[in-house]
Amino acid sequence: MLRHSLLVPALFVVGFTFAISLFSPTIASAEDAEVQTLGLLLFEDFEILDACGPLEVWGNLKSKVRVVTVAAKKGSISSAQGPALVAEFGYDDCPKLDMLLVPGGLGAFQTLKDAATLEFLRKRSAEAKLTMSVCNGASLLAAAGLLDGRPATTNKAYWKQSTAPGPQVKWVRQARWVDDGNVVTSSGVSAGIDMTLHVVERLYGPATADRLADEIEYERHRDADWDPFAEKNAKPKGRKRS
Amino acid sequence: MLRHSLLVPALFVVGFTFAISLFSPTIASAEDAEVQTLGLLLFEDFEILDACGPLEVWGNLKSKVRVVTVAAKKGSISSAQGPALVAEFGYDDCPKLDMLLVPGGLGAFQTLKDAATLEFLRKRSAEAKLTMSVCNGASLLAAAGLLDGRPATTNKAYWKQSTAPGPQVKWVRQARWVDDGNVVTSSGVSAGIDMTLHVVERLYGPATADRLADEIEYERHRDADWDPFAEKNAKPKGRKRS
Repeated sequence: MLRHSLLVPALFVVGFTFAISLFSPTIASAEDAEVQTLGLLLFEDFEILDACGPLEVWGNLKSKVRVVTVAAKKGSISSAQGPALVAEFGYDDCPKLDMLLVPGGLGAFQTLKDAATLEFLRKRSAEAKLTMSVCNGASLLAAAGLLDGRPATTNKAYWKQSTAPGPQVKWVRQARWVDDGNVVTSSGVSAGIDMTLHVVERLYGPATADRLADEIEYERHRDADWDPFAEKNAKPKGRKRS
Repeated sequence: MLRHSLLVPALFVVGFTFAISLFSPTIASAEDAEVQTLGLLLFEDFEILDACGPLEVWGNLKSKVRVVTVAAKKGSISSAQGPALVAEFGYDDCPKLDMLLVPGGLGAFQTLKDAATLEFLRKRSAEAKLTMSVCNGASLLAAAGLLDGRPATTNKAYWKQSTAPGPQVKWVRQARWVDDGNVVTSSGVSAGIDMTLHVVERLYGPATADRLADEIEYERHRDADWDPFAEKNAKPKGRKRS
């Protein structure tokens, strides 16, 4: 009777293990599904810190986010500062994106005229959970019609030129970033780092965001309304890039 | 006599113009010489913001600085965060460098063992007017013997591991950056932006540094001793990259 009484739990364990083995591919897929794919748009003369500030943060969160780079055609894409980043994908072979990140830079003004890029933004933003821009990356989102009727911000030094493609956008003049749910836009260049840490905090909690900021020895601006550059960069000063 | 009296100054003007024309190539060269070539070292798994924070600043100062990227072999070099930068030159065809910038990252620890990189750093640093490092880029300079007997800093989260290659270095535990004349080292990752703006101020004056900071909407840390991360990142916390 002792041997019979052990048989029932033994069969249960064997059956349970077998059932688990059948489901294990499903479990693995569920884990994979938690890793979100973030696509960084690249175009000639993008601003290097617009792209690489947020990339530093997202790229250190590998258990949750996979970063991919995409441009009209895959390959080397020069920044406005000179050095080039590599676009791993073209518009035609880019994987599904859960998050979309659009940097700015002097090249963004030229890219406004590119129908393929605007179409890519419209399509991929509709599929993504979250669309983000840095600096006049917002001009590209605006030109694609993705900001119509919504609050958004952009850089303060080229405010007039950057907001022009979005007459229907509720532009916010003083803001480090504007969080409008599934679209988050930041002010110029370095503001992208603060916006990214804000989004990480929203998605994964303050402890994760603070740990990532400490790792890169970065003192966060935590207030979305903090923006001395709205006034500082307002006056035309014959600014030039040299 | 009137015609004769005009002849002397006329000949003077012709002679002067001719003399100037002889010297004009020299003048042009002198102007060219004012554009300094800054070389950014790249290696597999470099930290992307260590490189691209300073690049953002130097790359916006095109009338004074030409940025080039260099690695053991030219081509695509992946960052620790994933995306790759393009190295335009290899060690064998890299142009003369006036300034040398060495980022850190997890890949720097592996690169410590690479004799060709240490030799490249020794040779190019000796020729350059200024050598700079960000984060544990200082470990590479230390391993090359370039920091022996000199004050320097590095990142605070990996302090023990980062300072190990430099037992003869006067490591400064609390510092955003350390300026030791022709060698300037910064603390971790984002500190490279503050160090760069400090160096720009030293070389080109405060108005230029402030203009560049405002353009990228960056609030500078101006105090080289500001460093909350010396204490914050001191405790081992089972830190991991995810």
